[in-house]
Amino acid sequence: MIQFDIEAEEGKARFGCIEVKGKKTRTPLFMPVATRGSLRTLSNEEGRNIGFEALIANAYHLLMRPGTDVIKGAGGIHKYINWPGIIFTDSGGFQMIRSGFERDISLEGVKFKSEVDGKTTHMTPEENILLQRELGTDISMCLDFCPPHPASKEVLVRSVEITTSWASRCKDVGHATFCISQGGTNDKLRAKSCKELVDLGFQGYAVGGLSIGEPKNEMYRMLNIADNIYPHHKPRYVMGLGSPLDILESISRGMDIFDSAYPTRNARHGTIMTSKGRLSIENSRFRKDYQPLDEDCHCPVCTEYSRSYINHLFQANELSGLRLATIHNLSFMHDLIKNAQSAIQEGTFKSYKKEFGDNYK
Amino acid sequence: MIQFDIEAEEGKARFGCIEVKGKKTRTPLFMPVATRGSLRTLSNEEGRNIGFEALIANAYHLLMRPGTDVIKGAGGIHKYINWPGIIFTDSGGFQMIRSGFERDISLEGVKFKSEVDGKTTHMTPEENILLQRELGTDISMCLDFCPPHPASKEVLVRSVEITTSWASRCKDVGHATFCISQGGTNDKLRAKSCKELVDLGFQGYAVGGLSIGEPKNEMYRMLNIADNIYPHHKPRYVMGLGSPLDILESISRGMDIFDSAYPTRNARHGTIMTSKGRLSIENSRFRKDYQPLDEDCHCPVCTEYSRSYINHLFQANELSGLRLATIHNLSFMHDLIKNAQSAIQEGTFKSYKKEFGDNYK
Repeated sequence: MIQFDIEAEEGKARFGCIEVKGKKTRTPLFMPVATRGSLRTLSNEEGRNIGFEALIANAYHLLMRPGTDVIKGAGGIHKYINWPGIIFTDSGGFQMIRSGFERDISLEGVKFKSEVDGKTTHMTPEENILLQRELGTDISMCLDFCPPHPASKEVLVRSVEITTSWASRCKDVGHATFCISQGGTNDKLRAKSCKELVDLGFQGYAVGGLSIGEPKNEMYRMLNIADNIYPHHKPRYVMGLGSPLDILESISRGMDIFDSAYPTRNARHGTIMTSKGRLSIENSRFRKDYQPLDEDCHCPVCTEYSRSYINHLFQANELSGLRLATIHNLSFMHDLIKNAQSAIQEGTFKSYKKEFGDNYK
Repeated sequence: MIQFDIEAEEGKARFGCIEVKGKKTRTPLFMPVATRGSLRTLSNEEGRNIGFEALIANAYHLLMRPGTDVIKGAGGIHKYINWPGIIFTDSGGFQMIRSGFERDISLEGVKFKSEVDGKTTHMTPEENILLQRELGTDISMCLDFCPPHPASKEVLVRSVEITTSWASRCKDVGHATFCISQGGTNDKLRAKSCKELVDLGFQGYAVGGLSIGEPKNEMYRMLNIADNIYPHHKPRYVMGLGSPLDILESISRGMDIFDSAYPTRNARHGTIMTSKGRLSIENSRFRKDYQPLDEDCHCPVCTEYSRSYINHLFQANELSGLRLATIHNLSFMHDLIKNAQSAIQEGTFKSYKKEFGDNYK
């Protein structure tokens, strides 16, 4: 059971608390992505040290490698990956479908080719939820059908139909805690998807199929639709959203939870998030720039290392460069979310959002 | 000036303390290698957290990238790389020569091709020491001429002649603190090289040109020769020696200082050092092995993660796997050296060495 309490509101923005299996975390919440049970360049306790209390892993990827038996044998995913905090798992439907097997989606389930041994496997929504339960996750996500953008109306209609049907079957298994709406950027289909999920009744409501190439204003319109239909007192989760401005916009539209590989993936490509916008640390203009990555940041990287040194590490292909960039970017995201939480409590979120946006170019 | 005090001896093994510029570290000393100013998968403060008080960087590599001007501009290498402890720098002669420009070595100096822009550069021994001084290193190493193994007697004769001549000119600059003997595994030439360096007089004495493919018994014979000729009260440094058994053998032959990329490079290739010998963590037999990497190790990796999880990280190409393996291997080396220090103080080094060797298969 998920307990969700809204403790402060400013406009549509909400400050709250999620509790699951005795573990709590504040919302708005940003989760770093540990697809395969690892924060890529960081060990998991480093994510905790930054301040994160929840992460999201991917059931499909963990099924492929190391396999459910390995994680069960370790006593569950928390123990296996050394993350005592909250763990969400995504179904992996997005990955299965993106592997080019869209034609193998039916009402029955999804057929996909294993990325490890190439074998074709079939999985029903029920089996997917059982998989997430076997891993020992705290919050499982329904299997959904997310078509690429742009998709024809016909495909979107089918994706909503299948997604609702699958959500219903996931719910029947008894462990599916968050559903996911589809419908692309079609107002009517998005509203239909949201309403059907609300009729089924879930502990949490996600918005899927966004941030995959559609224009920003269409994405925001879909969030408004979801906000109008989803129950006020349930947590709302926009999947895969990671840019700071998008997250602040979503919070102002009543959304609570976010996850994205954006800060970690950008870090590995040398793109550093700062209070004044992004910078490419590999650029030679940083060769003798002895400032911290972000002068407004108090993370251990900004306290101890210069842009010049991190530029050098990237130039010299030292893995420690990816790591320092990742620690900074995740610290930046954590600070952003903490600031948003405080601002909502103090009733200053609107001005915080404006000020952040004015500086972040 | 380097202060070196021997505080305890057992046979030829010595426990002591090196002090330079107000910074102290115990000997026997093992230094992790930060060729380009970084411990590869770790940030430098993580090396300190393991317990290391000294590291070795490479003047040639740092000249190539980021360049002396960058490090000078930062206020010196300690500040630039965030390492307040002792920093040794190697001249980089080994790298310059290994780049295939052996024919371009003369009494005058060495010609080498830049690995960054391909330009051919000439460097004298004096210029090399000035370079190390400019970087702000604590302990600089003389430029030496290390031929590959095996080398003809003619080449070895020339390498000793050139190495002595260069050492003399390095000393004249006034900052060269450790000399390096050559002579391959030829007893007479090794002795000649050691004697000529002792006649010049240095603050520390290194043994070069070993651990490059020669048989172990020949290597140990060369250490015995150096031990007999080098002054008892000066620190002795075997360059590039990293396997635990070699280090314990060298300590028992009166050697004090070691450096090697062995633990970090092995870690990146999945080779884990344990009290019972090495293991290849990528091997599928570790898939469901929930023990720590080394049951006798108390490092943060062995406390928090299983062989199974680290096997998974390597299988899944997660960079965090390289990092956890590196933390463990460096912790293992640090423990080995600390145990050796304690054993010499307590007069139990001989039995410690035997017991370690009996277990480490």
